[in-house]
Amino acid sequence: MERPRHQGMAKNTYMRWRLPLVCLLWEVAMIVLFGVFVRFSPEADAHWEEEKREMNLTSDMENDFYFRYPSFQDVHVMIFVGFGFLMTFLKRYGFGAVGFNFLLAAFGIQWALLMQGWFHSFKNGKILIGVENLINADFCVGSVCIAFGAILGKTSPIQLLIMTLFQVTLFAVNEYILLNLLHVKDAGGSMTIHTFGAYFGLTVTRILYRPNLEQCKDKQGSVYHSDLFAMIGTLYLWMYWPSFNSAISDHGDAQHRAAINTYCSLAACVLTTMAFSSMLQKKGKLDMVHIQNATLAGGVAVGTSAEMMLTPYGSLIVGFICGIVSTVGYVYLTPFLESRLHIQDTCGIHNLHAMPGLIGGIVGAITAAAATEDVYGKEGFIKAFDFTGLYQTRTPSIQGGFQAAGIVVSVLIALAGGSLVGAILKLPLWGDAAAENCFEDDIYWEVPEDEESDAYHMHNPDKPASP
Amino acid sequence: MERPRHQGMAKNTYMRWRLPLVCLLWEVAMIVLFGVFVRFSPEADAHWEEEKREMNLTSDMENDFYFRYPSFQDVHVMIFVGFGFLMTFLKRYGFGAVGFNFLLAAFGIQWALLMQGWFHSFKNGKILIGVENLINADFCVGSVCIAFGAILGKTSPIQLLIMTLFQVTLFAVNEYILLNLLHVKDAGGSMTIHTFGAYFGLTVTRILYRPNLEQCKDKQGSVYHSDLFAMIGTLYLWMYWPSFNSAISDHGDAQHRAAINTYCSLAACVLTTMAFSSMLQKKGKLDMVHIQNATLAGGVAVGTSAEMMLTPYGSLIVGFICGIVSTVGYVYLTPFLESRLHIQDTCGIHNLHAMPGLIGGIVGAITAAAATEDVYGKEGFIKAFDFTGLYQTRTPSIQGGFQAAGIVVSVLIALAGGSLVGAILKLPLWGDAAAENCFEDDIYWEVPEDEESDAYHMHNPDKPASP
Amino acid sequence: MERPRHQGMAKNTYMRWRLPLVCLLWEVAMIVLFGVFVRFSPEADAHWEEEKREMNLTSDMENDFYFRYPSFQDVHVMIFVGFGFLMTFLKRYGFGAVGFNFLLAAFGIQWALLMQGWFHSFKNGKILIGVENLINADFCVGSVCIAFGAILGKTSPIQLLIMTLFQVTLFAVNEYILLNLLHVKDAGGSMTIHTFGAYFGLTVTRILYRPNLEQCKDKQGSVYHSDLFAMIGTLYLWMYWPSFNSAISDHGDAQHRAAINTYCSLAACVLTTMAFSSMLQKKGKLDMVHIQNATLAGGVAVGTSAEMMLTPYGSLIVGFICGIVSTVGYVYLTPFLESRLHIQDTCGIHNLHAMPGLIGGIVGAITAAAATEDVYGKEGFIKAFDFTGLYQTRTPSIQGGFQAAGIVVSVLIALAGGSLVGAILKLPLWGDAAAENCFEDDIYWEVPEDEESDAYHMHNPDKPASP
Repeated sequence: MERPRHQGMAKNTYMRWRLPLVCLLWEVAMIVLFGVFVRFSPEADAHWEEEKREMNLTSDMENDFYFRYPSFQDVHVMIFVGFGFLMTFLKRYGFGAVGFNFLLAAFGIQWALLMQGWFHSFKNGKILIGVENLINADFCVGSVCIAFGAILGKTSPIQLLIMTLFQVTLFAVNEYILLNLLHVKDAGGSMTIHTFGAYFGLTVTRILYRPNLEQCKDKQGSVYHSDLFAMIGTLYLWMYWPSFNSAISDHGDAQHRAAINTYCSLAACVLTTMAFSSMLQKKGKLDMVHIQNATLAGGVAVGTSAEMMLTPYGSLIVGFICGIVSTVGYVYLTPFLESRLHIQDTCGIHNLHAMPGLIGGIVGAITAAAATEDVYGKEGFIKAFDFTGLYQTRTPSIQGGFQAAGIVVSVLIALAGGSLVGAILKLPLWGDAAAENCFEDDIYWEVPEDEESDAYHMHNPDKPASP
Repeated sequence: MERPRHQGMAKNTYMRWRLPLVCLLWEVAMIVLFGVFVRFSPEADAHWEEEKREMNLTSDMENDFYFRYPSFQDVHVMIFVGFGFLMTFLKRYGFGAVGFNFLLAAFGIQWALLMQGWFHSFKNGKILIGVENLINADFCVGSVCIAFGAILGKTSPIQLLIMTLFQVTLFAVNEYILLNLLHVKDAGGSMTIHTFGAYFGLTVTRILYRPNLEQCKDKQGSVYHSDLFAMIGTLYLWMYWPSFNSAISDHGDAQHRAAINTYCSLAACVLTTMAFSSMLQKKGKLDMVHIQNATLAGGVAVGTSAEMMLTPYGSLIVGFICGIVSTVGYVYLTPFLESRLHIQDTCGIHNLHAMPGLIGGIVGAITAAAATEDVYGKEGFIKAFDFTGLYQTRTPSIQGGFQAAGIVVSVLIALAGGSLVGAILKLPLWGDAAAENCFEDDIYWEVPEDEESDAYHMHNPDKPASP
Repeated sequence: MERPRHQGMAKNTYMRWRLPLVCLLWEVAMIVLFGVFVRFSPEADAHWEEEKREMNLTSDMENDFYFRYPSFQDVHVMIFVGFGFLMTFLKRYGFGAVGFNFLLAAFGIQWALLMQGWFHSFKNGKILIGVENLINADFCVGSVCIAFGAILGKTSPIQLLIMTLFQVTLFAVNEYILLNLLHVKDAGGSMTIHTFGAYFGLTVTRILYRPNLEQCKDKQGSVYHSDLFAMIGTLYLWMYWPSFNSAISDHGDAQHRAAINTYCSLAACVLTTMAFSSMLQKKGKLDMVHIQNATLAGGVAVGTSAEMMLTPYGSLIVGFICGIVSTVGYVYLTPFLESRLHIQDTCGIHNLHAMPGLIGGIVGAITAAAATEDVYGKEGFIKAFDFTGLYQTRTPSIQGGFQAAGIVVSVLIALAGGSLVGAILKLPLWGDAAAENCFEDDIYWEVPEDEESDAYHMHNPDKPASP
């Protein structure tokens, strides 16, 4: 058996049987459940020709695939490259950032297809999936990627898989309450994805508090090239956010409008982030941490309202405010949360997702409450808020109230769920690293020997190079 | 106050109040102007259902969003990741390359929406924006990113914001003269974007000539990994260029054709670039500078003609020539421009944008002049050149003449505008670095301490690591 | 003339005249052949308005461009960034990986447009090209990129261009036999692209066997950041694979279904790859080589069947199996192939493309053989397998037999073609490096001097830095 490197390395991080067991068992479970439940939606089924005739569609172009596939691919890039590379900023945790994000997202989308399917696409005992389900699964996993940001570098892949299982489940429940019971609009997920994901992750990291993390303070920083890798993540999130917020909006004007609003909000956010990053530093220099993160807050904060008639200047105002809030959060709030509340938030998701998510929920509530038939047109008004059937008599101000309720519900479920999951993850079974080995790939990964890693590697020199 | 590092560091680069002030004031101005002027186009407005009825459209698919959104996202990636990472080749200026490009583009697209809006989308006192406006704003900013390439590493972010303000304004004026007054075709912007942007940037860098730049010659080179980062930029520009040149072409065949022509031209360009890169080096080795840049010249050079019936082999010929011209330019012209004309062109935009842009304008003029009803079909001929209304009687050869005039106008406005802006940027107010601090992130950015940067960092060792 | 660095460096790698000559001559040949043969398809031609009337199309949306362009761009990214960066894992061969991939793909797509055009789009003496041809050209080049993976680091760019010329030719022949003569379905190319490309490449590398490659074993490994660059390639391949497998499927349900099946297969594959990567390593650590490659096997293995009614759970099963097969292959088979069969497979394409490709062919044959009118619907059944005209009477089980024959044909042509091309490449004319200079950029590239490269560079210190 391997000799522990330091005397302090008491924890057993040996994953050889535990990680494979979890991965294989869960994947088998997915196969069984997909076999029982999941089938193609009519638009992806070979019976489509008949469907077309029945629906009186004259062109294959009317297949939802063509309305949503480009946006789906953009969202897909955000989840895997966007979140994955955003978290590579740590100098020696790049493999873990991009690799574990890959693992949890790949599992999460499968479980999300099932959970969201049971709630939203269940017909005659089967879940019928199409491109919109793929987008929603990616969305759901997005909230797990956000929570991952809070505990980055401090958890084992087994813990991450367990968190994913529970968080996806709770996400689907929360989403069902908001969208179906409260009849809330949240196409870009300010509440369901960002607020929920962030408070969930912050609660988990609070419960997993590590008092001795100071020891590896040096590893919590970046190096020059790791900051550039992280910028790949940042830019893909920033560029594709208009696709994110418009991906599942109604066909036509709603998708179009959501993309424009998000574009505007994000543009404004960059300028206030730069301004405050420079202003809050003694020497006026810009801080990569802010540029990598706070520039994205504008996208989070129009997640609910982007498909509404927020207007371009309204979007600019939201972006303006969120760049400031988020940057100030990184400078003053993150250290405070860590020292006083014992919330160790590796990526600062409180600044990038929690606060902008709350703002997004509030902006959505206000925008909904302020809606008028004059601004939306008679038909557009009904269509935008889906004031049909059961909700025919709902007024904008009531809708605004329900939107606000959606924020509260999301936060509460996140806190309760995060507490539960945090407690489970605290069990000494999951192979998490000791404090002095946090933020270090070497615990879970074969790390190549190189000039830069001399200080960290512990490889067998006889090991042949990778093929 | 901070003690200057070298005795030579005379210039004050302290940005703590100046950069935030500029960013915040200008963003507030954007909000006010957007509030007064910018609204959604009918296709992005909630009244779309009524619009559809009026226009007799049967499907949401007819919304321009679905014709252009995928191309828009590709263009968006080119501006932020393409140009941003292309410029990360410098060994210690990666943060500035990708970060300042981010800043100027985020500001520029807002100002471009206004400027181009006033000229092209102004109805009843309002600018009505849709996805095509977003593309055009990105295009306009593209010309600023090009100019940025000439002055990369030698200017402060404040200077870049000032340049962006003026260049976007002049771009919109030039574009209006070409497209509306001369009735010129230039969908991919050989003239309006590349020729204009390049000559503008070259004039600015000429006026900002720094005689002592030799001192930091070592920092103008690349390191191994910075060249790989730059290749990310190169490849995204190369791959998405067909989207760039087809993004705002007419629906249907024109978009289709523009993509094919650009694809062909770029493919040919890679081969001649490789050939001449090897041939012009004593030992026959390939030079990354050429591969990163000259391979893209083929896209620039079919910017005007791609949507015309240039034909695939015509495109190959254009790409063939431009790979040669551009590579030869890097080897012989760039050193000449620097030593004789005092034009210090960091990224070699003269080779990648100025010369190929001119070629593109000329190819466009010839292709237009050579157009016949036989080749285009009766309807196609009128549609391709928009020979309707006022221009009903224009013949191909006259159109060719106007196209040629467009080149001249673009160059002239670029030279005049660049001189003006260069003079403004020379004022000793904007915090630009001294010659010995050029091409160095450390002046404007918090740079993490790491093995590679030992020679450059000047951090306070007590500073806590970034969160 | 340059003095050889080591006494062992006997081979002449001097490319100054040979590489340019090949590039220029071949590009001229392309121009001539394009001039004679290639024209626009009706959907990209300016006569489109007339075509629309003739075909009774009411909207420009019916142009194939809008059905396929987003998928085309995703495929394009996979070829240039996906394959290019996937191969940057080697510590000192990043320029060669991404640069030579760029060169061979840029040449290959032109030659593929011609070869595939003569077989499939030839009308009245002209090849008529549209967006589908661009996708197919990228596909064809994909098989060359795969073969490149086997010989990565051991060949000169001239050899790569020669291989590309022959492999594209043989690809087109094999594809014609499968699709037209055997009437086989293979939209995602399990057989035509992956099986063919992999066995071709493995044969070539077998013939080019280098007995002394042990000398540069140290250069066959990765460094920390090169592994992160490679992950960019991996993730783009993984994310866009649904576009790859659906890009040329029939409009409507087939494209939709192919994307869903691929998404599912890839997700499952990640979990079993992680499981076996950990399980097969003594200390249970994950190996980046597996994560970078084996996670993609699920996409390869549904290449034939994704557009069929494979069902989501069927896709999960295929992905499940392939993650295991591929990872086990990296651990046990690659060393065996190298030591016993003298097949030096730099990137392990046997594990990522050959075996999953075979599995994909078999899964396709079984899925086709198991098809029923009940599952597909009467119309869907005929449409899915194109059982019209000559093939009106073909039954699923016969189709399954032909599919299986397609696998055999692909392997045989690959082995025969690979032997031929390997023999040609063995001629001592093409400037390949000596064994001790393999996996090293410095032979063919100007490599910047930097901290990391001290051990490798041999630059003239007087050489000015790149502009």
